[in-house]
Amino acid sequence: MARITLFGNRESGHTYKVRMLLTMAGIGHDYTEINLKQPREQRPEPFRSLAKFGEVPLLVMDGQPYVQSNAILLHLAEHAGCFGGESPERLARMREWLFWEANRIGFSLPNFRYGRRFVAGGLDPAVEAFLRARFDADIARLEHELADGRAFIVDDQPTIADLALSAYMYWSEQALVQLPPGVTAWLVRIAELPGWCHPDAMATQ
Amino acid sequence: MARITLFGNRESGHTYKVRMLLTMAGIGHDYTEINLKQPREQRPEPFRSLAKFGEVPLLVMDGQPYVQSNAILLHLAEHAGCFGGESPERLARMREWLFWEANRIGFSLPNFRYGRRFVAGGLDPAVEAFLRARFDADIARLEHELADGRAFIVDDQPTIADLALSAYMYWSEQALVQLPPGVTAWLVRIAELPGWCHPDAMATQ
Repeated sequence: MARITLFGNRESGHTYKVRMLLTMAGIGHDYTEINLKQPREQRPEPFRSLAKFGEVPLLVMDGQPYVQSNAILLHLAEHAGCFGGESPERLARMREWLFWEANRIGFSLPNFRYGRRFVAGGLDPAVEAFLRARFDADIARLEHELADGRAFIVDDQPTIADLALSAYMYWSEQALVQLPPGVTAWLVRIAELPGWCHPDAMATQ
Repeated sequence: MARITLFGNRESGHTYKVRMLLTMAGIGHDYTEINLKQPREQRPEPFRSLAKFGEVPLLVMDGQPYVQSNAILLHLAEHAGCFGGESPERLARMREWLFWEANRIGFSLPNFRYGRRFVAGGLDPAVEAFLRARFDADIARLEHELADGRAFIVDDQPTIADLALSAYMYWSEQALVQLPPGVTAWLVRIAELPGWCHPDAMATQ
């Protein structure tokens, strides 16, 4: 069995994505919380050496480091043989959504939330409006996609794309944004999957 | 042999990435230019039906549509058996860079260039400063990565991660940004690969 350690932070939705997959796929692992308030050069080993740029999440599997949350998800889904594409056609759709997430809602929502939650005095209003416009476009696209009634983003089976896309949305209240009904119903379906838990509950584990 | 058509636009670095791989890997294909000034609902078929959100690039292979430039690159590298990972370790590093690109420099640089080249009067100064700060951090990270003297971003062999990361950098003058020496030397090495051409030269083909 592979020896797996995840280094993460409880305020990071990117960490949460990976913890969800580890838990939901039943992959045995250790978890180490990294204090992001600590200067990068003071963070503990082996995190400091293996996460070259000091970012979470970092997954270490049999001594090999893996970074970038969606790349970690792809690696773990292949390792576990679940929540992945399982056919060339589904794999293609799933990867499209993973890259869309990285460029679109995995940019707009975390940065918008960050400004509202962690930046004293908030972001510059023009920057906030820029991020808000992107978030609005992104969430409208997801709502439109899910309007055909399928249960998950690729089809009726959940994949790592659902975990990636949904992660920060469970903190939508922290970003002070409202989610449309189709997206909300999809978030409920994900939350009903065996092993799922809310990021706030996971943070205290 | 697969029947492949790429639908793209000459001002899109994301289209350019895919055209480069098709050309450099010697993958036979047709190319169709999409006029992005045309309203989405007036764009020609089959593009309009297959690219659900009307975005370029769209690759159609044997009737199946593929979107999201980095997902297309992964698919084509697997199809062609070149410019991909070729080992589990290289594949992991290559995917990390593809996701980093989608979230970081594939966001900051295209949006910064867009504001300077296509937005009348330019972006709001605060938004421009936000994007500039991200671009500066992103390019500093790449410069740091390449400082160990390796030829390409994964190791001494080029991959689709090099094509993805470099695409918009060949238009750095349009974004009015300067590139540091290590990044510049890496761009020259990519440009010396067989079949490479500059995005402006490709645009007139």
